[in-house]
Amino acid sequence: MTIRIGIVGYGNLGRGVENAVKQNPDTELSVVFTRRDPATLKIASNATVASINDAEAWKDKVDVLIMCGGSATDLPVQTPKFAEMFNVIDSFDTHAKIPEHYENVDKAAKKGCKIGIISVGWDPGLFSLNRLYANAILPEGKDYTFWGKGVSQGHSDAIRRIPGVKNAKQYTIPVEAALEGARSGLNPELSTRQKHTRECFVVLEEGADAAKVEEQIKTMPNYFADYDTTVHFISEEELKRDHSGIAHGGFVIRSGKTGANKENTHVIEYSLKLDSNPEFTSSVLVAYARAAVRLAQEGQTGCRTVFDIAPRYLCVQSNEELRAHFL
Amino acid sequence: MTIRIGIVGYGNLGRGVENAVKQNPDTELSVVFTRRDPATLKIASNATVASINDAEAWKDKVDVLIMCGGSATDLPVQTPKFAEMFNVIDSFDTHAKIPEHYENVDKAAKKGCKIGIISVGWDPGLFSLNRLYANAILPEGKDYTFWGKGVSQGHSDAIRRIPGVKNAKQYTIPVEAALEGARSGLNPELSTRQKHTRECFVVLEEGADAAKVEEQIKTMPNYFADYDTTVHFISEEELKRDHSGIAHGGFVIRSGKTGANKENTHVIEYSLKLDSNPEFTSSVLVAYARAAVRLAQEGQTGCRTVFDIAPRYLCVQSNEELRAHFL
Repeated sequence: MTIRIGIVGYGNLGRGVENAVKQNPDTELSVVFTRRDPATLKIASNATVASINDAEAWKDKVDVLIMCGGSATDLPVQTPKFAEMFNVIDSFDTHAKIPEHYENVDKAAKKGCKIGIISVGWDPGLFSLNRLYANAILPEGKDYTFWGKGVSQGHSDAIRRIPGVKNAKQYTIPVEAALEGARSGLNPELSTRQKHTRECFVVLEEGADAAKVEEQIKTMPNYFADYDTTVHFISEEELKRDHSGIAHGGFVIRSGKTGANKENTHVIEYSLKLDSNPEFTSSVLVAYARAAVRLAQEGQTGCRTVFDIAPRYLCVQSNEELRAHFL
Repeated sequence: MTIRIGIVGYGNLGRGVENAVKQNPDTELSVVFTRRDPATLKIASNATVASINDAEAWKDKVDVLIMCGGSATDLPVQTPKFAEMFNVIDSFDTHAKIPEHYENVDKAAKKGCKIGIISVGWDPGLFSLNRLYANAILPEGKDYTFWGKGVSQGHSDAIRRIPGVKNAKQYTIPVEAALEGARSGLNPELSTRQKHTRECFVVLEEGADAAKVEEQIKTMPNYFADYDTTVHFISEEELKRDHSGIAHGGFVIRSGKTGANKENTHVIEYSLKLDSNPEFTSSVLVAYARAAVRLAQEGQTGCRTVFDIAPRYLCVQSNEELRAHFL
């Protein structure tokens, strides 16, 4: 059976899903739902483009919807709403609000007898899985998560809100010495400042005061004050030419002790080096979309996260093939 | 509820399980079954030592048995045998025979209405999980697994079978240039010889011909002929003093392409650096022993592998705690 996929929202993530679907022989893209006028949206495949307001008509023509909106305002509303009509999956990444989002999606999905999988991607997602497995195996130890080098959307947005700033990109960069410390097995305490640096590329409005903007960035609480931050002022052309990349990545490291006298140290490290953050996230979403459909076929309903899903559900291969080739 | 664990076989792995149980607040070691005279076996905890022949009497006093015998001759017989009476878990690692072992354990566990989890550890085990997840996410790409630096028991045994050899240890060592190639995203084809080297420390019987032994090692098919192999002749004292370590580790790397024109490359890397191979394997076994008991409590029966088990089953924490802290 071919899994019929619908996309809600056609930005970087939606386009990534469209490409990822082509790499999976058992999936096809049926429809892209948009808030724009469907007639104006040109997509790269032969799928139908439809208004998000007409989604209900597709209830029986789509096996799973991949929600490709933003975590700030789109997903908290859209994922529960669509979970009443469709199996859904999203990449909701506001860590602090996951419990609330889980409850909302769980209620809606149970009401509609559907499956909803939330917070799928790499963090939350694959990084979460690695934190969980490593903690289950090494109960006595210490976790480290590093991000980057890559653009942080939230930090770039924070700079753009400063008066006098026309545009900006902010890179989060892990500190090599901190990575080595985490890998050493010595379980060092690492401060926020020791783990990451922040590098900002800023385009000013005409007449803006560079020194003042730099000061405002470097002293901004939560976002920059606790970090060693570098600010570069560049032109809009330079920003577009040199800083349009969407590369990202990071590291999850846990080291722990075992033995009668805790004399043995073990280090578990998981890392990602990604040319395209949205395309990789899309690829994770499509694998878990397969899982959503299978769970629904088993008659399961309600909200799930990556923690609830047995790995075999992600794979197109049979269980026998998986045991023979991957185990 | 405290999970009552039994151990079958008290070697390095059994002792590792005994220590790992102490690190998990919800588990306790109830009994160690041995083929030796129980009166002669001194263990490090207060658990009972019993003859393996009296195991049936413990049917209702143990929640899960951790099988700590060897994959060559113990586990193929013991795991199916005990799966008729107990929930069981093993670290069977003869990759080629996993499908057959799976069938045998599945049949026995279903007959006894028990759960059997096989091939749990790091390879097979955590490395298998990482191969599966990475393949599900990046369908178009290439896998690399590297082992070491660490002692290979199978290769050490192969050397010991050569006439004139009194004792031997063999290290498998990943080649740094091959690791870099795998991480490059260029998906190089790497031959067996390019990926690992083998270093042998050999104690000769008196009067044995060193040159002849070295020749026999280096030309041994499957084990050494396809590798760059170094042979050192040392004394029994040096072997004991310098080569009794049980450190091991390795790397699972997958790189793959995404995008409309496959223009973006992603590299997923998982690595382990282990001071004690048996203690780490034991720690994985205890986490999955928890899962075995939970699956059995749900009324499930039959054989499982790490692919079949949702990550949350491994953890002592509640689902709410897992979502709040690890997701």
